Amino acid sequence: MPLDSPITLPAWAALNDLAARMQGPEHHLRRLLEAPGRLEAFSVAGGGLFYDYSRQRVIPAVMDALFDLASQRDLVGSFRRMVSGEIVNTTEGRAALHTAARRLDQTPVRVSGRDVMPEIRAVREQIREFATAVHAGRITGSTGKPFRDIVVVGIGGSYLGAAFAAHALAEDARPGMRLHFLANVDIHNFGRVVAAIDPEATLWVVISKSYTTTETMANALQAEHFMRAKGLDPARHTVTVTAKGSPGDDPARPVLAAFHMFDFIGGRYSVTSAVGGVPLSLYLGYERFEALLMGAAEMDQHAAEAPAEENLPLLAALLTVWNTNFLGYPALGIIPYAEPLARLPAHVQQLNMESNGKSVDLEGRFLAVSTGPIIFGEPGTCAQHSFFQLAHQGRPFPIEFIGVVQPRYSMQDKARHKDVTNHQELWANLVAQSRALAVGKPEGTPERRFEGNRPSSTLLMEDLGAINVGRLLSFYEARTVFEAFVWGINPFDQFGVELGKTMAAGLRRALADQNAGRPLPDDLDPIARFYLRTLAGGRWDQI
Amino acid sequence: MPLDSPITLPAWAALNDLAARMQGPEHHLRRLLEAPGRLEAFSVAGGGLFYDYSRQRVIPAVMDALFDLASQRDLVGSFRRMVSGEIVNTTEGRAALHTAARRLDQTPVRVSGRDVMPEIRAVREQIREFATAVHAGRITGSTGKPFRDIVVVGIGGSYLGAAFAAHALAEDARPGMRLHFLANVDIHNFGRVVAAIDPEATLWVVISKSYTTTETMANALQAEHFMRAKGLDPARHTVTVTAKGSPGDDPARPVLAAFHMFDFIGGRYSVTSAVGGVPLSLYLGYERFEALLMGAAEMDQHAAEAPAEENLPLLAALLTVWNTNFLGYPALGIIPYAEPLARLPAHVQQLNMESNGKSVDLEGRFLAVSTGPIIFGEPGTCAQHSFFQLAHQGRPFPIEFIGVVQPRYSMQDKARHKDVTNHQELWANLVAQSRALAVGKPEGTPERRFEGNRPSSTLLMEDLGAINVGRLLSFYEARTVFEAFVWGINPFDQFGVELGKTMAAGLRRALADQNAGRPLPDDLDPIARFYLRTLAGGRWDQI
Repeated sequence: MPLDSPITLPAWAALNDLAARMQGPEHHLRRLLEAPGRLEAFSVAGGGLFYDYSRQRVIPAVMDALFDLASQRDLVGSFRRMVSGEIVNTTEGRAALHTAARRLDQTPVRVSGRDVMPEIRAVREQIREFATAVHAGRITGSTGKPFRDIVVVGIGGSYLGAAFAAHALAEDARPGMRLHFLANVDIHNFGRVVAAIDPEATLWVVISKSYTTTETMANALQAEHFMRAKGLDPARHTVTVTAKGSPGDDPARPVLAAFHMFDFIGGRYSVTSAVGGVPLSLYLGYERFEALLMGAAEMDQHAAEAPAEENLPLLAALLTVWNTNFLGYPALGIIPYAEPLARLPAHVQQLNMESNGKSVDLEGRFLAVSTGPIIFGEPGTCAQHSFFQLAHQGRPFPIEFIGVVQPRYSMQDKARHKDVTNHQELWANLVAQSRALAVGKPEGTPERRFEGNRPSSTLLMEDLGAINVGRLLSFYEARTVFEAFVWGINPFDQFGVELGKTMAAGLRRALADQNAGRPLPDDLDPIARFYLRTLAGGRWDQI
Repeated sequence: MPLDSPITLPAWAALNDLAARMQGPEHHLRRLLEAPGRLEAFSVAGGGLFYDYSRQRVIPAVMDALFDLASQRDLVGSFRRMVSGEIVNTTEGRAALHTAARRLDQTPVRVSGRDVMPEIRAVREQIREFATAVHAGRITGSTGKPFRDIVVVGIGGSYLGAAFAAHALAEDARPGMRLHFLANVDIHNFGRVVAAIDPEATLWVVISKSYTTTETMANALQAEHFMRAKGLDPARHTVTVTAKGSPGDDPARPVLAAFHMFDFIGGRYSVTSAVGGVPLSLYLGYERFEALLMGAAEMDQHAAEAPAEENLPLLAALLTVWNTNFLGYPALGIIPYAEPLARLPAHVQQLNMESNGKSVDLEGRFLAVSTGPIIFGEPGTCAQHSFFQLAHQGRPFPIEFIGVVQPRYSMQDKARHKDVTNHQELWANLVAQSRALAVGKPEGTPERRFEGNRPSSTLLMEDLGAINVGRLLSFYEARTVFEAFVWGINPFDQFGVELGKTMAAGLRRALADQNAGRPLPDDLDPIARFYLRTLAGGRWDQI
């Protein structure tokens, strides 16, 4: 049955009418917040987190229409089909089973009839054994030094999720263990990493599903040269995380271990697979990684089972659609009031913008509606002292605030400035900002006036342990796919990155020609020619 | 003479007409780029940088109208008035003289008749002497250990600019010297910093103009408790950067040194004042800081003197206005193809969004046009593997690419993957992306098609030395104020941050009441009450 365009659904028309109604002054957030029971009506706990959307520009009729949309699109059913192994990535003919990566029960998950859980469990067991052996000093570098520096060589989906989680959980790092990321092909990235490590104590974790990703291969090659120059055997300082049978899984090129990735888990959804599992287990210990899996699995189950009205990621997705398609906001700010979550916005940028930055639906039709918003953010309260001026008095955009009830350092939070702890100060700001954005201040000289009516949600976590980081990861993954289900797009492909790659390959060949003393190709466009000459020492003021 | 709204200017109407014309297929970037001499016509070198806007959606008529706008708004004249000390920050009755902070010549700069250069030079000299004495070991901590860890305690304008520059120039750090930033009031920030330092070898640099910034005072108090607990004398481990006569400049509270800030330099423009000068001189040596000043001064002079057609920051500002107000783009991506510039987007987020996220003009009128775009970014090529899917096939937004001709690590760039160095690979991608975004690819199955017509600029730097980082800083500062001059807004105030602060103060008092065993105030709004109770151990599933 072909998928309808969302705009043909009855709920879509109803939401359009409601959006027009919401423009009236009686629906200003200042007024909406006066209603008794606002928070009770527009907040929900589930999957271990708490989600407050009382300061979104919604009324019960809007939520009812959004729930109708959820039902007309069968969002929960679609999620279950994804979780059950259906081929939901239709352009690439693949399942999307990141949820299987964290299943800790014995339920089989079949892709085209074959249970994938045994191979997932085998990789997990391999990670556990390898990490344990490294930590016990049974596996060392080629000079016998225990591994202390882990360098992850990977980019995009092989980098950002693990980097986010590692930064979030840094307090849980095993003593003395340091984790570095070599993602960018920029030689500055390589130069800074090798300046920071002890080469003899370094384990390089090269992550690439195809083992052909240009940046990763270029960096892995630099690493190999570096090791040889230090008199070290690369085979004894390297593990790979890659697809079975890829060039990174070739017995002719021996490594300490090769951990398999599966074609049913896309890069940006892969934190809970070996992509996150190997670096995080080495850095934190396998048990922490498994705690992260537990949290993610809990939120997966919540997303698959909770009714729309109580389903956190589904609610968040519906509000994205409402804000994007009906209220017309082009962007979403993610502001964690927690320094350890500093890299969450970058992770969600990738996860959501790469998944939902699409303009073609599952039927191959160009969409009549815009899809994924621009996502950005920095931690609060820092963001308040940076771009919140614009949030309050410039261009409005919705914000997702994230709060953490219990900080890790309550013992160090001794001094009390103005009779409160630092964490209390942080919390006061978290709570104040969402209200200030919503209610505004209509009085005062013009430059001191605040229009208000700026929507936000607040997501609460009990603490910053691995379980909650897992819940948070799964929340954003599930929310992303729920949004895609509404729009009828494929959140698992990324053909939009291909054109630039193809063009870069052409320029790389031209540069290789230049390196070999051959002339630049005749058909090179003049702008590219200028840049290639500039790189080779040409002067830019003499075009 | 009252300032007209920009929409009343003749150029504005002409630009509106042109924007309608640019929608036609003959003005698709794919077509525009076919014109011979496109790069020569739409690129310029100046102030030590190179700016290529050939892939912006402009034609000569558009540029002519934008130059008319520049002239009708007297942009260069306005810039000169700012540089000369006029009271351009009218809501606060202040000059805006960040450009004076880096003047290295002997020209006086008068504010209300008084030359401010002697006091600026005196602070610079004080920084030079202090940094030199620290590096020589003549000034040490209270146990006699040389200072090795510098902790900057400051937020917003007292943090992001220096953090950006320090990250950019990390290779120039003095051996053994480490720089940390304690910006966020989040106790996790404090906890992680103190876990990373050697307390006896730590110098705390507390930066706040008023010396009342809540986050900074809370963190400074934590630091003081921490030092005392370690048996160290805070007075011998602390310097302040603050306004003359502030509580941080009080002889009754002795510190190693107090460096003065001036009311004519706003936080987000203050990197070249003592705010950046003290941390950067301690970390890199005063000479590097002065090189940064030189570069910034060079770009300032270029901005003040070059005609519009050759003026880099002015051109960039005009293109912001064109993209924002006429082509309707809500955001701008800043993508440095240089890992050391990773924090530039965050710095420019603050600089530009806090300056130009306004809705009231200098006459106190609500604006008829939108102002500052949302700014975000991550380094390339990482961004390509993250959110560039959306850039290519989703919601279009202009991008500013930044390239660096000479990397610092050419000696380490030995391995050649596919016959090119890492830096060449990076460069190939930089050049390919702007072209791919512009020309697109109209063929293929729908999910493999690229609409193209996505605008971008490319800014080139010769290398990542301090002079170029200074030029880059000044480029973004000048561009920001040029944009404000077009819109007729004040880029130097930030009243939009006040409401949230006021509300947070109310909640802080409520929390202090709770700490003292007093009941929460009766007039506390119910949502805030819920959050305060949750923080005190209330369960969120029992609202």
